[in-house]
Amino acid sequence: MKGSLIGIGVGPGDPELLTIKAVKAIEKADLIIAPCSRAEEDSIALDIVKEYIKEATEVRKRVFPMVTCKETLKQHWEENAREIMGELENNKQVVFLTLGDPMLYSTYIYINRLIADGGYSVATVPGITSFGAIACRLNIPLAEGNEPLLIYPLGKNTRALEKALELGVEAVVMKASQNPTGLAALIEANSLEDSFVVVSKCGQDKETISNNIEVLKQERLPYLSTVLIKSKPIERKW
Amino acid sequence: MKGSLIGIGVGPGDPELLTIKAVKAIEKADLIIAPCSRAEEDSIALDIVKEYIKEATEVRKRVFPMVTCKETLKQHWEENAREIMGELENNKQVVFLTLGDPMLYSTYIYINRLIADGGYSVATVPGITSFGAIACRLNIPLAEGNEPLLIYPLGKNTRALEKALELGVEAVVMKASQNPTGLAALIEANSLEDSFVVVSKCGQDKETISNNIEVLKQERLPYLSTVLIKSKPIERKW
Repeated sequence: MKGSLIGIGVGPGDPELLTIKAVKAIEKADLIIAPCSRAEEDSIALDIVKEYIKEATEVRKRVFPMVTCKETLKQHWEENAREIMGELENNKQVVFLTLGDPMLYSTYIYINRLIADGGYSVATVPGITSFGAIACRLNIPLAEGNEPLLIYPLGKNTRALEKALELGVEAVVMKASQNPTGLAALIEANSLEDSFVVVSKCGQDKETISNNIEVLKQERLPYLSTVLIKSKPIERKW
Repeated sequence: MKGSLIGIGVGPGDPELLTIKAVKAIEKADLIIAPCSRAEEDSIALDIVKEYIKEATEVRKRVFPMVTCKETLKQHWEENAREIMGELENNKQVVFLTLGDPMLYSTYIYINRLIADGGYSVATVPGITSFGAIACRLNIPLAEGNEPLLIYPLGKNTRALEKALELGVEAVVMKASQNPTGLAALIEANSLEDSFVVVSKCGQDKETISNNIEVLKQERLPYLSTVLIKSKPIERKW
């Protein structure tokens, strides 16, 4: 019998936003893989779950660099997948941690695919998304009634977001630090200056919340920044 | 000191998909409000959390009918909000249960607004969405890299969904039972017959999974049906 890989969404930051299922999987793990973007940096995902890890469980921090070069990324995914498959051959229960939800914009998606293609058993536990937590934190619904909601990872190309805003769709813009000035221009072009809010490091010590368009124009948003754009003005001010 | 209202997302069905925070709030509650669609029906949300409820906690099932008449809905929301405000005046900790996530297409959004407008303390705990759980169940990512994702509550008007599919956006269609034949026509118009999967009652005893377009054309989907539409063909068959 070979081991299995369990991908776990650890949510956006608060350890209490882990699910019971995720906590149980962490408690039973032989090995936990915690991703980070640089070797000298802490793993945010590991920091969130550390109170649930049993003493006998091994933890390995592994680097997944934040680069756009596909070859470099692929190399890191393959190296990591090989390491995990080696442990599965040794009947280990391996848990891979992911910030937010594992099936939405995560490195885990690529690892999952490589391990499943290798013929190994893979299971995934959903997690609370950053935008789900932000909506609760701000007390602003993401979407209600028959409103569509667009989840949009921001890049240089903003075409699908443009179309959605023209149609009056509610939007969550993730990775807002990738192109904040482009986003500011879109918000202004659609006269949505009173209908957005930007949240950085939600639920963490350095959390900031703002609905001032100048914050986007400064082009210096923190990495973990998310913008909610509503079809109607947001009444509360920050 | 007055009591406070806590809205809780109980997730899609598996009691282990509740967060630690949700379980703690349920354990501390004086009163739990559990919504159902008809007086003679069970509350699915209550069924999910029942193992976490302490003996001393009072539970009240309350009816929120599934009708489109706004006046009828408003009357139910207002009656329910008045009842909750009465309990908050008596310093009660009141928990309101919601399937999936409370800030996405829930009755709780309206109750939250009425209670907050009344000047009472309101907090909300995010929950695992049905689509988050479905993606894990099927081992299909919702969106990766820079793919936008549209969350779409299906109705008779499908314009924003049409535009999104034309642009090759990944989509989650909720409330698919509202207009399954309209959805089937859109899938065929965009040649996406190999790129969708419909899941009914995910994680429950009567769960069904299919990628056969005829299932949508029969126009008899269960209430809790969700459709994932991918921009590329889905390899696995059901």
